[in-house]
Formats: sequence, structure tokens, C-alpha cells
Amino acid sequence: MEKRAKKTDTRIKLIETGLTLFAKNGYNGTGIKEIVDGADVPKGSFYNYFRSKEAFTVEIIRHYSQALSNMWDASLASGPSDDPHGALRNSFEMIVGLQEGAGVKSGCLIGNLAAEISEASDLCRQEMHRSTTAWKDRVSFYIEQGQAGGSIRNDISSRTLTEFIWNAWEGALLNMKIANSTDPIKECICVLFDFFLKPQKN
Amino acid sequence: MEKRAKKTDTRIKLIETGLTLFAKNGYNGTGIKEIVDGADVPKGSFYNYFRSKEAFTVEIIRHYSQALSNMWDASLASGPSDDPHGALRNSFEMIVGLQEGAGVKSGCLIGNLAAEISEASDLCRQEMHRSTTAWKDRVSFYIEQGQAGGSIRNDISSRTLTEFIWNAWEGALLNMKIANSTDPIKECICVLFDFFLKPQKN
Repeated sequence: MEKRAKKTDTRIKLIETGLTLFAKNGYNGTGIKEIVDGADVPKGSFYNYFRSKEAFTVEIIRHYSQALSNMWDASLASGPSDDPHGALRNSFEMIVGLQEGAGVKSGCLIGNLAAEISEASDLCRQEMHRSTTAWKDRVSFYIEQGQAGGSIRNDISSRTLTEFIWNAWEGALLNMKIANSTDPIKECICVLFDFFLKPQKN
Repeated sequence: MEKRAKKTDTRIKLIETGLTLFAKNGYNGTGIKEIVDGADVPKGSFYNYFRSKEAFTVEIIRHYSQALSNMWDASLASGPSDDPHGALRNSFEMIVGLQEGAGVKSGCLIGNLAAEISEASDLCRQEMHRSTTAWKDRVSFYIEQGQAGGSIRNDISSRTLTEFIWNAWEGALLNMKIANSTDPIKECICVLFDFFLKPQKN
């Protein structure tokens, strides 16, 4: 029993170390040696837990996506329950706070990996597709609520609005990295919520 | 004279080979050996032309950005001259055609490098900042023309609109890579031009 717990611990430790290193240096900029060193795991034990670096990366994407889902659930629940527009804005603003507090403005791990390896690894690409779809389903649900209640425009489908929000947000995170400032993501939220998502006059 | 021309040719050959390899495999996924092999240049001669891989990448960003500027100038000039909204849309649609024709849906090299190395290299980050600023200046000029002529909304400043367009477009290119389809960039153009940029009713 104890041995099994240890095995799980090591696996999680490797995944969390990999996640931190990927966020800082990307997939190709991170070697397996660095990962095992960072996780303080004996060299060569990596392949006891993961078939390949690619399979390991699939697990990292899954782990990151699950953590992100939990964070979104918590922040959406903490927002105004009768105001989906406000609850969504609140969640994006929480991420701005996290990026402001972080020494490394890593942005979104999935966006970064999409840029770097979606051509090279179909397995990782498919896992990114699943993760972003799950996120979009969650946001789309709130958009629909806002459309039904009249706080979000209803001349564009909730699916199309959600795709567009994802695009604008991921692009703003890249913009943040290039500018080395959180101004782009703050401005993006203002344009999205003060203008783009608001009900349009007929 | 002939020797000098040869030197320039080799330099350009290295840059163009690097650009192709970076678009496919990213910065860290591309080794200098591959670049010299791909350019058919003797091993070890790389450092006759570039101080480091980082300095080489700055040149690649500059080269890509210049080629992109030329393409935008040409496509904007080929669009309807009295319709900045249509001319901008025309240019984005041209890029959709290029991505559709490409075997590798590489998206935007600057967006990809921003995701991968803007933390690791301040020199490259600064060059990306210069390149994106030049692109934004060009687009912003057209936005202002459209605002003055009434084809583009004027309740948001041209600078803010341009930043938002950049974000939405770069995010849509990431979305394209994850979906392995050009549908996200086509849909993004429709939302931008059919809804977001249009003059708003008061």
C-alpha cells in the first residue's frame, strides 16, 4: 500500500515538475534529465512511469486542463450567480491577477504547446483539442445563460461567441508575452466585456 | 565582388532554411546542424555569419516580418482602394488561402516564437515587439481610414481595435493548429468583419 502511494507520488511529482519546466522553456527546451533532476527522482526511472516524452506530455496537458477546470469552476461559482456576464468577467480577471503575480509570464500552457508541437505530435494535439473543447463547453453554458437573461448579445450563437473569446484571449496572452506586460490581457477583457459581448442595439 | 555575392547568398540561404525549420519544429526543435545541412553549407560555417543561434533568430524574425510587410502592402493595394474595411478583409482572406494551400499549418511564426521563447530570449522578444508594432501601425492606418469614412466602428480607438484584431487573429491561428483545420480562422474573419468592426447603432 505504501509502495503504491509512493509510486503515485513520484508520478505526480514528475508531471508537476514537467509542467513548470514546459511553462518556462517549452517542450523542446526541456530535457528528460532536467525533469528527473527537478523532481529528484533517480535517472532512468522516467520510463517506469511514462512510455515516452510524448505520452508524458499528454499527461501534462490532461493534468493542466483538470487544474484549470477546477479553477474555473471555483471562480465562476464565486462570481455573481445571477449574472453570467459578470461571473465570466470575474474569472478572466482572476487569471490576470495570477499572471501579474507570476515571475514568469507563461500565459496558457495549451496555447504555448499548440504553437510549438501541434504539427509534431498528433497525440498531444488531440489531447489539446479535448481540453479546449471542455473549457469551451463550460464557457458556452454561461454565454447561453447570459443570452437567455439578456446580459449577453444574442445575434451570434453561443458557440461562435465562445470560439471568438478563446481566440481573443489566447492571442492576448501571446501579446502579453511579447510586450512583457499584462496590459494586453487587461485591455482584451475590457473590449470583450464592455463592447463585444454586450447586447447590441437593433 | 563574386565572393561577396556568394557570402550574401549563403547568409540568406541559412535564414530561409532556418525559417522553414522553425515554422515546422520551433526554435528548440531545430538544431544548427539541421540548418547547415538543410542549407547545404559546410558544417561549422554557421558562426561565420551569425554570432549565436539567438542572433540568427533575431534575423529570422526580421526577415519574416519584412516578407509579411511586403505581402500586406501588396494585398492591401490589390483590395478596393475606397473601402478600407474590404481591403483589410481581403488581406486576411488571402492568408487563409495560403494556410489552406500549405501542407504544414504553421500559423504565424511570430506568434509561435512568442509562445516558445519570449521568456528565454529578451533580444528575440524585442524584435518580435518591433515586428508586431510595424504590422499594427499598418493595420491601424486602415482602421482610421475606415472610421473616417464610416465603414468601421468609431466608438473604440483605432489602436485598441488593432490590438484586439491582432489578438483574435493570433488566437485563431492557434485554434487552427489544434483543430488541424482552417475553419477557426475563417470563422474569426467573419466575426471580426461582419460583426465586431462594423459601425454600431447608437
